[in-house]
Amino acid sequence: MSEVNSESRLARQLRFIVEIDRLKGILRQSRLMDDSRRENSAEHSWHISLLATVMAEYGPPTLDLTKVVRMCLVHDIVEIDAGDVFVYDKKGHEADIAANERAAADRIFGLLPDDQAAELRALWDEFEALETQEARFARSMDRLMPMLHNLENVNPSWKRHGIRLDQVEERNGIVGEVAPALWAWILPRLEAAVADGRLLPRAKSGD
Amino acid sequence: MSEVNSESRLARQLRFIVEIDRLKGILRQSRLMDDSRRENSAEHSWHISLLATVMAEYGPPTLDLTKVVRMCLVHDIVEIDAGDVFVYDKKGHEADIAANERAAADRIFGLLPDDQAAELRALWDEFEALETQEARFARSMDRLMPMLHNLENVNPSWKRHGIRLDQVEERNGIVGEVAPALWAWILPRLEAAVADGRLLPRAKSGD
Repeated sequence: MSEVNSESRLARQLRFIVEIDRLKGILRQSRLMDDSRRENSAEHSWHISLLATVMAEYGPPTLDLTKVVRMCLVHDIVEIDAGDVFVYDKKGHEADIAANERAAADRIFGLLPDDQAAELRALWDEFEALETQEARFARSMDRLMPMLHNLENVNPSWKRHGIRLDQVEERNGIVGEVAPALWAWILPRLEAAVADGRLLPRAKSGD
Repeated sequence: MSEVNSESRLARQLRFIVEIDRLKGILRQSRLMDDSRRENSAEHSWHISLLATVMAEYGPPTLDLTKVVRMCLVHDIVEIDAGDVFVYDKKGHEADIAANERAAADRIFGLLPDDQAAELRALWDEFEALETQEARFARSMDRLMPMLHNLENVNPSWKRHGIRLDQVEERNGIVGEVAPALWAWILPRLEAAVADGRLLPRAKSGD
């Protein structure tokens, strides 16, 4: 069998590598920290891989960092088909979003040879299920990073979308569960963002 | 000591994470595979991290893939200060480029707490020294990827810069040494790129 046969192992691996180039064209709500443009999901995946590497010490002592980094690298690949959904727009649509993302995972990881498809799909499934400490730590890095962008940006996505402090606390509470020291650092900065008008105050009860 | 003290461990870690956001603004000669724009070094680092993950089986059987991926993640960070130098423009300037990149590594990795600075700097030094099998595999992924971009692009950087096949073979020969099966796959495609005018033929001896 020729190596260029479309069913060959290497051809499938290369098709996956070419396909995921499209993640560089998926734009997020976050802007680069210098406010120059919107961030894409490929560069974001790189950034949280290094965030996890640097911040691993704030997670559980038995954390498998290698697995966390691998999850960070693949966690957004489904957006090539399913798009990036702004975290504050997800409420009430979770089931549809999850179905779209599963279909995307079937197609995109399925480009790979079966063993590698199963391996990367299992990593993504574990990330989505949020049951293991590695998945929870990876997710907390994925949630911490947009807060860091918002704190650096002159015109943060919080302000552009009218987001409230209680929404930020609810959506990102996993950071406090997984890495309490990081949450302790971020919380006074969220309060400061309210004070300087970049984040709306908490809704009053009954709102 | 307050956690917001500029010398605190977490403050240094966060300063590094904010600083490396600038890698997203460093543009390479490669264009995205759909030709829509130039690629930046952050998204490229993500892409070769996954290329290494998928192609590890073509490298030496004792390859430490975790270390390779960590090298891929940090290998271009020095470009924040030193810029991206087109691989075919390096000849004769290697010493100056290396000095610039070492100064950049001193500054940027030096933002981190000393233990983490030393750890990531050691990874980068190992990548640059090209002596270990992990460094050589990571470099071969860094060299394979632009060839994949050129093969996908309608208007490849090879053509825009008047690059010849012998230059591609010389600069990327490490792929053949480290991952012979990948080189065997790429070589006929380089010849085909010459045939369809996207790459210049080899210089005749004496040129």
